[in-house]
Amino acid sequence: MSTETIPFAKGLEGVIAAESKICKVDGVKGDLSYYGYSIFDLSESATYEEVAYLLLYGKLPNEKELREFLILAKRYRKLEPSVLTIQKYLAKNTHPMKALQSSYAALGGIWDSTYKEKFIETLIGYIEQTPLLVASHYRIMKQQEVITPDPQLSFSGNFLYMLSGKKPPKEEEKIFDKILILHMEHSLNASTFTARVVASSLPPVSSVISAATGSLFGPLHGGANEKVLQMIDEIGSIENVEKWIDGAIARKKKISGMGHRVYKVKDPRATILQKSLKAFAKDELSKKRLIISEKLEEYFVTRMTEKGKQIYPNVDFYSGILLNSIGIDPILFTPIFAIARVSGWAAHVREQWEDNRIFRPKALYIGEEGKKYIPITQR
Amino acid sequence: MSTETIPFAKGLEGVIAAESKICKVDGVKGDLSYYGYSIFDLSESATYEEVAYLLLYGKLPNEKELREFLILAKRYRKLEPSVLTIQKYLAKNTHPMKALQSSYAALGGIWDSTYKEKFIETLIGYIEQTPLLVASHYRIMKQQEVITPDPQLSFSGNFLYMLSGKKPPKEEEKIFDKILILHMEHSLNASTFTARVVASSLPPVSSVISAATGSLFGPLHGGANEKVLQMIDEIGSIENVEKWIDGAIARKKKISGMGHRVYKVKDPRATILQKSLKAFAKDELSKKRLIISEKLEEYFVTRMTEKGKQIYPNVDFYSGILLNSIGIDPILFTPIFAIARVSGWAAHVREQWEDNRIFRPKALYIGEEGKKYIPITQR
Repeated sequence: MSTETIPFAKGLEGVIAAESKICKVDGVKGDLSYYGYSIFDLSESATYEEVAYLLLYGKLPNEKELREFLILAKRYRKLEPSVLTIQKYLAKNTHPMKALQSSYAALGGIWDSTYKEKFIETLIGYIEQTPLLVASHYRIMKQQEVITPDPQLSFSGNFLYMLSGKKPPKEEEKIFDKILILHMEHSLNASTFTARVVASSLPPVSSVISAATGSLFGPLHGGANEKVLQMIDEIGSIENVEKWIDGAIARKKKISGMGHRVYKVKDPRATILQKSLKAFAKDELSKKRLIISEKLEEYFVTRMTEKGKQIYPNVDFYSGILLNSIGIDPILFTPIFAIARVSGWAAHVREQWEDNRIFRPKALYIGEEGKKYIPITQR
Repeated sequence: MSTETIPFAKGLEGVIAAESKICKVDGVKGDLSYYGYSIFDLSESATYEEVAYLLLYGKLPNEKELREFLILAKRYRKLEPSVLTIQKYLAKNTHPMKALQSSYAALGGIWDSTYKEKFIETLIGYIEQTPLLVASHYRIMKQQEVITPDPQLSFSGNFLYMLSGKKPPKEEEKIFDKILILHMEHSLNASTFTARVVASSLPPVSSVISAATGSLFGPLHGGANEKVLQMIDEIGSIENVEKWIDGAIARKKKISGMGHRVYKVKDPRATILQKSLKAFAKDELSKKRLIISEKLEEYFVTRMTEKGKQIYPNVDFYSGILLNSIGIDPILFTPIFAIARVSGWAAHVREQWEDNRIFRPKALYIGEEGKKYIPITQR
């Protein structure tokens, strides 16, 4: 290879970083599948717990397998007093994502495992603990009493219960399951890639999961659905959509929740979330937001198509509106993304550890060479 | 590109993941330079503080610049009570690297910044805090009183003081500076690559530094110098070296501290550390370990050369012996690596944020497709 043609893709765009059996993103057809099962089927028919099993073991469980899986998982459905104390001592207004990153690492001091041990059970433990860690810190932050988890409830039901102190209606539990399923896995996004890179030096599970959380906290990764909600509320009325979008396009402002490096068509997750929102939005605010966002989509896509650009809604476009319609505080949107995505991280940790090689790419050196060291007094 | 020839390098070996002006690793000549300055010059003549400045600003400071840099850095030389409390509540025997990962994220709740703000000062704050976080947790773990940092001491001097409660002799401070300088930066190793990947989604500084710590904790990255020390003590005598190595080679056992993906000759850092150890080793144990390790190097390299293999000592081969000779507990070897490497992470965060693009490589999908979803009762 000659030095003139060194191939270098910023952000590793287009570069293959791993082989994987976990997830296929079809950016042209607009489909996403986990271990061969389309997200359309999974989000329609499966529970969160079934899909977590699928991601960890590569197959859907039968009734017996699921029962055993739930018994194992629920062993980890308990608040760890030392982590709870740590959450209480975090500085006031510590962002929930920082609290989560810190809590995972602290949890690692209580139970953990490396690739040499039975790490799948530990991954299940971290998946099960995530909603507990998020809910307990949220209640502490709001100066409310922490709710003890309920082993009778489903994964989603228990989280919603631990947030509000009230057992959620079945319909909310189901919609929350669907939102989680759609966010569980998406190939080598930045946080999952982080999980694989960190896992590749073989630290214990807690170090990996904590690190991936830091990546998800970045606004280029998590957080866009919160911005969509703000944007929709700023637009405020269906009449204001065209003017607002024209202004934004003129100022070259990026529209939150639109466009994706992989999808060249509408993100299948956006399609599913939009449908759910249409079925679920009953209060006036949610109905209004739905109408504004659909109008925004229609008008923005038309304007982009005129310019020859294919930019469509991504997963973040309808998810924040839907989450808020079941009463979720926007500060929890990214932590909820983590509650879902931890299953994807776990699947990739498993795959990485089954055939590991440490990530150690090269940098193309473009700096100076052979500089002479001069003592500080002569500089 | 045809599908038959999809290029895929496990661990991204040989793949260029970023352009960089920070560090050149010359694996053929056996040299390492930071911003054009050879590690031989820097470790011989510069202080840790000068090199930290170099890595952050791309130039060596003059006296005035260094003075101002130290004033700024020392503003962060104070124990944060809430982080200290958190360290106290960590589960007993939490490994110092988990404690550090957790502490960084907790520190992020007190002060932090994103790429939009004056993040270089924050990076300096995290560099300055690292030895404090390590020393305070270590003292807590040992049920000793935490030592208040001393603003009069150098960076290294203060850390050694906070570990033992005694002001270190100048010679130890100098040798510790040298060890740190050698470990500060090494291009896209797994933890620095982690830092860049995490930084690329634009979370605040604390999230990035905490995540990189998780990667460094992996035994394929940090921790090898601890294993070298164990190996040398297991060998126990110079007479036992040849037999031990022959046995290890016969059993295809990996020899800790030997070989490196990038260096095809002896790691320059090993050369420098060996020289320092020869000058510094005065107690009987260190002298004995030195003799055993030099014999081990000589015999192992000869045996490998006979087999046509070029495997030489890397940075870990002499560093643990040297650290232990100044009384450092082996459990602190990897945290000390972090104390040094945080400067390299900081340099790369700065470079990444100056021209950011989110890391989002591709996975080569090798799994199943189009699987039909069957309800759980029929599985």
